[in-house]
Amino acid sequence: MVYSQMSLEEKKALLSELTEKYNEFKARDLSLNMARGKPSNAQLDLSMGMMDVLASTSDLSCEDGTDCRNYGVLEGLDEAKKLLGDMMEVPADNIIIYGNSSLNVMYDTISRCMTHGVMGHTPWCKLPSVKFLCPVPGYDRHFAITEHFGIEMINVPMTEDGPDMDLVETLVANDSAIKGIWCVPKYSNPQGYSYSNETVRRFARLKPAAEDFRVFWDNAYCIHHLYDDKQDFVLELLDECRKAGNADMVYKFVSTSKISFPGSGISAIAASHNNLKDIKHQMAIQTIGHDKVNQLRHVRYFGDINGMREHMRLHADILRPKFEKVDEILTRELEGTGVGEWSKPLGGYFVSFESLDGCAKDIVALCKKAGVVLTNAGATYPYGKDPRDSNIRIAPSYPPIEDLAVATELFALCVKIVSLKKLIAEA
Amino acid sequence: MVYSQMSLEEKKALLSELTEKYNEFKARDLSLNMARGKPSNAQLDLSMGMMDVLASTSDLSCEDGTDCRNYGVLEGLDEAKKLLGDMMEVPADNIIIYGNSSLNVMYDTISRCMTHGVMGHTPWCKLPSVKFLCPVPGYDRHFAITEHFGIEMINVPMTEDGPDMDLVETLVANDSAIKGIWCVPKYSNPQGYSYSNETVRRFARLKPAAEDFRVFWDNAYCIHHLYDDKQDFVLELLDECRKAGNADMVYKFVSTSKISFPGSGISAIAASHNNLKDIKHQMAIQTIGHDKVNQLRHVRYFGDINGMREHMRLHADILRPKFEKVDEILTRELEGTGVGEWSKPLGGYFVSFESLDGCAKDIVALCKKAGVVLTNAGATYPYGKDPRDSNIRIAPSYPPIEDLAVATELFALCVKIVSLKKLIAEA
Repeated sequence: MVYSQMSLEEKKALLSELTEKYNEFKARDLSLNMARGKPSNAQLDLSMGMMDVLASTSDLSCEDGTDCRNYGVLEGLDEAKKLLGDMMEVPADNIIIYGNSSLNVMYDTISRCMTHGVMGHTPWCKLPSVKFLCPVPGYDRHFAITEHFGIEMINVPMTEDGPDMDLVETLVANDSAIKGIWCVPKYSNPQGYSYSNETVRRFARLKPAAEDFRVFWDNAYCIHHLYDDKQDFVLELLDECRKAGNADMVYKFVSTSKISFPGSGISAIAASHNNLKDIKHQMAIQTIGHDKVNQLRHVRYFGDINGMREHMRLHADILRPKFEKVDEILTRELEGTGVGEWSKPLGGYFVSFESLDGCAKDIVALCKKAGVVLTNAGATYPYGKDPRDSNIRIAPSYPPIEDLAVATELFALCVKIVSLKKLIAEA
Repeated sequence: MVYSQMSLEEKKALLSELTEKYNEFKARDLSLNMARGKPSNAQLDLSMGMMDVLASTSDLSCEDGTDCRNYGVLEGLDEAKKLLGDMMEVPADNIIIYGNSSLNVMYDTISRCMTHGVMGHTPWCKLPSVKFLCPVPGYDRHFAITEHFGIEMINVPMTEDGPDMDLVETLVANDSAIKGIWCVPKYSNPQGYSYSNETVRRFARLKPAAEDFRVFWDNAYCIHHLYDDKQDFVLELLDECRKAGNADMVYKFVSTSKISFPGSGISAIAASHNNLKDIKHQMAIQTIGHDKVNQLRHVRYFGDINGMREHMRLHADILRPKFEKVDEILTRELEGTGVGEWSKPLGGYFVSFESLDGCAKDIVALCKKAGVVLTNAGATYPYGKDPRDSNIRIAPSYPPIEDLAVATELFALCVKIVSLKKLIAEA
């Protein structure tokens, strides 16, 4: 039944019934967490074989004969570039391998743009104003980086096909202070949307006023499917940009954080040769090279992209039932009530929930009081400010499925309670 | 015989004899490298046991129960902080563990100072002028970082007791644009000098005009002794600073690069709690955490600082004969000639050679022509400019001892030839 069409009495009766149920939950002293996109222990167990790949008897030379135990190899092992290149669908020679986290690569990239500029252009820290476009809802850690550097963030609404490209095209064409846009093109964070071919092609053909405008393309979930038979495909942007005469306009980022071990994986940037030359000039000052032994460990464990895809199937087998459980409970509890909508992604790490306007913060707070922690409401927007206070990010990956079910039930209950209170107050 | 006291005929005769010898070397088509402070293969073999420490059957939880395979633990494992804290002689709670290289930590530290300033002070990139003191000769990669950020470098002569502290005290007290000084306090690069107690105490008591002045204290060789019975000791600066009421004035850096595997080790910064708070504020934006699995690998392999010291004895057993061989050959070939002096360090990775003025570049070039690569002359000075063109850094660690002997003999020969030519030209 659609809540808004209930009579006031019906709403009050239902609220009272649900509040009783909530108090029962509260009495259970729960302590559950659906806040962050962390792999579960079962997923981490999948990669334990990686610990045996290199032994004291192993030859730690890479394919070109370099001893990976010693200094050197600024841009990473050839075979690591091949592996992560295949992940990102770009040639190995468009790749630089980095350290343990793509977040760190993105931070360093912005930091380099601030202090040294992009390919000879004025360092951003010397400009009166620098702005970034932020498709919303989006990833809080992206927004935290741009905020940290004092970059003004402009919201661009997301659609199921990607960011509102009419708006993106107009904004970048008319404001040379706009230097970048944050994108998670596949299984976006938090909605799990994937950019359409048309969206990618419009990105490739952007005519930004700023020559040093860059698309920050975070391939966080490029091979992170939930299903074998239902998968999203996203056009490869670097090649599309090249075809459109815009080869230098994109930085792509990737890591193995949700493939092997978060924080102990390897990461990479992919870009045009002009960009890579610019980046290596700075990198050669920052480091002698990243962790080659760990690059070797990853390459020898996965073998190639096919080995990695097989491995991702095992992750999917663990994640899929969790996503389906969340959807099952939300459908059972909320379908037809008109007080919430949620995404049904085919990959990635999140389900995005849209409540009635002005309810998200209260829902998250009510969940927390009963022992279920969600990502802070507002976190999916720049400056933590969700203008409609309606978006909530659900992260089903970490808790065991039984706990996840309980947490999702409580969540649905809190959605109903907060929504009813709002409807009653408005009556 | 002192070359400068020879007659012109004697010089010419000797030069002709040495040139013949040089041509014999050249005919051997040598390809030897004494340029960089890289551990040898034999040294790398010492740490291969580290590859067996973690296996697929291992529990990858650290002491507080955290699963090191997942996200989190921004500042590093407690046990890693203890281990690297013991290396640096500071309490574990003055430590943040970083990634695979202390060079990267130093770069990031300067970068943070540029974009965000130090503990609330104006970001350096907003200042009209930022200067650093550079004890010379020093480490080229330090100088490369400051040069990269446009920081003006001021030479400060090194003595056997450390930098000329009269000059340091005067400069920092009178110029608020001076924001830092690069120091390698123990077995300095390249001379292998260690700062005296008096020098460290004078550092601790500096009265810099700039409140955001920091001593960049690179503990690159803190436990890298060559001898059991002859070791340098350096007072611990952080504690000395605290006692002098200057607790916030120092950043200490360390890594395991020359202990386990260069580029695949762990690193750390040590500083006051005020500084650490400032650093963590930025770090939390840059990363979710560094490689905890590798931290665990190091802790489990070394056990504690005693295990690490034992391990360093094995390194010393390999390095010591090489340093002694260099000294033996230089003594045999050059003692009493008056054309060169060299350091006799008790630890670290380098021997520093002082030629006659104006000869270093020619010596390095002549060596190169015969197949022996040395660090570029000038590299030990900011901007690559050795004002007297006299300092050459010799790195004995990497080549096998037989190759090292040949290379050192050729080096001594080149020193003689270039010096004689200079003396003849001046006659």
